[in-house]
Amino acid sequence: METSINISRDEFSERAGKLLEKEKSEDLSGVVLFDSHYILYYTGFAFIPTERPIAFVMNSSGERALFVPRLEVEHAQTNSLIQRVDHYLEYPYQPHPMEKLKAMLVDMGITGRIGVDHDGYPWILGYRGPELSELMAVETIKLTGFIEDQMMVKSEAELVLIRESVKWGHLAHVLLQRYTKVGVTETEVSQRASQEANQTMLDTIGPIYQAQSPFSDGAGAGYRGQIGRNAAIPHALANNIIFMEGDVLVTGAGAPVWGYNSELERTMIIGPASDDQKRMFDHMVALQDLAISEIGPGVKCSDVDIAVRAYYEANDLMDYWKHHVGHAIGLRYHEAPFLDIGDETVIQPGMVFTVEPGLYNPDFGGFRHSDTVAVTEEGNEILTYYPRDLESLTIPV
Amino acid sequence: METSINISRDEFSERAGKLLEKEKSEDLSGVVLFDSHYILYYTGFAFIPTERPIAFVMNSSGERALFVPRLEVEHAQTNSLIQRVDHYLEYPYQPHPMEKLKAMLVDMGITGRIGVDHDGYPWILGYRGPELSELMAVETIKLTGFIEDQMMVKSEAELVLIRESVKWGHLAHVLLQRYTKVGVTETEVSQRASQEANQTMLDTIGPIYQAQSPFSDGAGAGYRGQIGRNAAIPHALANNIIFMEGDVLVTGAGAPVWGYNSELERTMIIGPASDDQKRMFDHMVALQDLAISEIGPGVKCSDVDIAVRAYYEANDLMDYWKHHVGHAIGLRYHEAPFLDIGDETVIQPGMVFTVEPGLYNPDFGGFRHSDTVAVTEEGNEILTYYPRDLESLTIPV
Repeated sequence: METSINISRDEFSERAGKLLEKEKSEDLSGVVLFDSHYILYYTGFAFIPTERPIAFVMNSSGERALFVPRLEVEHAQTNSLIQRVDHYLEYPYQPHPMEKLKAMLVDMGITGRIGVDHDGYPWILGYRGPELSELMAVETIKLTGFIEDQMMVKSEAELVLIRESVKWGHLAHVLLQRYTKVGVTETEVSQRASQEANQTMLDTIGPIYQAQSPFSDGAGAGYRGQIGRNAAIPHALANNIIFMEGDVLVTGAGAPVWGYNSELERTMIIGPASDDQKRMFDHMVALQDLAISEIGPGVKCSDVDIAVRAYYEANDLMDYWKHHVGHAIGLRYHEAPFLDIGDETVIQPGMVFTVEPGLYNPDFGGFRHSDTVAVTEEGNEILTYYPRDLESLTIPV
Repeated sequence: METSINISRDEFSERAGKLLEKEKSEDLSGVVLFDSHYILYYTGFAFIPTERPIAFVMNSSGERALFVPRLEVEHAQTNSLIQRVDHYLEYPYQPHPMEKLKAMLVDMGITGRIGVDHDGYPWILGYRGPELSELMAVETIKLTGFIEDQMMVKSEAELVLIRESVKWGHLAHVLLQRYTKVGVTETEVSQRASQEANQTMLDTIGPIYQAQSPFSDGAGAGYRGQIGRNAAIPHALANNIIFMEGDVLVTGAGAPVWGYNSELERTMIIGPASDDQKRMFDHMVALQDLAISEIGPGVKCSDVDIAVRAYYEANDLMDYWKHHVGHAIGLRYHEAPFLDIGDETVIQPGMVFTVEPGLYNPDFGGFRHSDTVAVTEEGNEILTYYPRDLESLTIPV
């Protein structure tokens, strides 16, 4: 179904068209994809991967097909972009579902050189089965890199969904902050904020909304570990912790919207920050400001990380460094490219990154904001709009 | 940390010991595992897989090691079963993390024939990297089948965790049923029941509890689609639905406990069942009774499915059949073996299955209970204890 906000039929067709061009340029007889996010990207067909194999198949004439278990037939048939749905009854069954897939590929003229993401369905949740190259006389060519490159650059419609995700993550975070206080537990605050934000989101956009995410059912916000006191709390006890004055909290919030994600994380402090906490907080915000100022078209991902690491080094902060600046985000909550010294990808308009350099110290706590930033023709735009300053993020006591 | 209920250090050592025996019998120089559930099973080290590779490594002397990113070093070092933790700074970085893994393997004497689950880290969430067999001169032998076979048979300690999971799934389901009534939405009922059950679970067993699950954060219950009215509701609208008299509801409840799962699903009807609904409900319960009566040591998984399918056929119900009888459950919410005509595995004491034959009809709705059943020396024991009869599952109007 098309709604006013989800990806249009034309856009799905255009995506598959680019894959077909690649198929032709590589002289492939067809493409077989098993990854649920790749299938969602090319067809809009959303499912949670289990031991029952599902595949998207496209031959060199551009005929698009889904291979599904009996359970998913009606769901697959409602997809107007798909010209053919083949199914098997069950897994493991007899004959093995892969025998049916083989027959389908042969019937669609897919033999010889074929493009794949995996050589056969991955062994997850107890699935066992042959690789495609064991099953039939084919040579499998990995298209994973091509697909990842295609998914990196977001369209206007994808940005609309990420912006919508930002809104509901924002609401969840506002409620999370509002309900956080000394004496309540992280679990009750997270659950209350998530429940209210999700209910409100569904009451507001329910008729034009689908989550389409294996990672999350709806809007939510929570705590990413009680980093401020973690060193003092045994690992097995690190849940349902009661908030105390002086805690440094790192949060996370978001909402999947037609599969698309955003990321919002904030460092909050309960009660007035100590001098050490304030110093760490200020450096963290400066690191994030610097990272954002570096992001723009034509810059290499690695250059952003190099610039940020220079700040860590100049300010003697490398002891508190644990990870790179950020990652791309879209249908997956982490995806390539990475704002990392090892990633030479040239940044392009339409890429969307999280920007989240952090500082971690067992005595003072963990300090990290994460914002979602879209690359524009001119530079970038910060899609998240939650306050980043210490005063706004101090919980009164 | 050991608590009164989680898997003991000795049991983890015993598991790894069996893997070491396999390593020796196959004349392997070592084992490299990337799958997060396999790593949890052999070491107790829980993590959510991302683009940053993590591996469990064991050489032929039985030395156990973890390969992790900088972010996970402290977490890995607290694991008392691990003698060695090697880390890389970041992904993708320079050099690529796989270069560090290669050096680690060489240092541990792992070359030539090695046992693996995947030939290299799987390409997820934007990860790209070489296969082990491209990286170094090794021959990779897949141990996936051996590992799956080992994980199938649960120990007493594993059963304790699954029984604990059953309790909190039960509580979530009791609350779900209590709050379900005409005029409220599925979302608010699911969230309220889940929030209260999870909070109560943490208040009750928090100090000895960890979820250790990528699938779920805690106890919860919800609806598995509004099957009774689904045909009449466009796909994109199938959320936040308001309950109406006559709805047939299929629920699901559970809780991860130190990684272990149980499954409880019930068919509930709002208001008095129609004659057609009652007939479908009764057949569904009869199918489940029959399946449970067939499960016992020495029986083949396929025989259970064959017996159940004979009932479908004898009662002219095959038009309403959509899937096999059930699947094993444990660290994953679905795992092998399957109660399916294609699975010849002989059932053994210690296996744990979901039993959930269903009937699906677009006019009357979907009908499915799922119970968690452990195989004993004598036969089986139903671990879930939620009422299964229509009267108990009718929501008053």
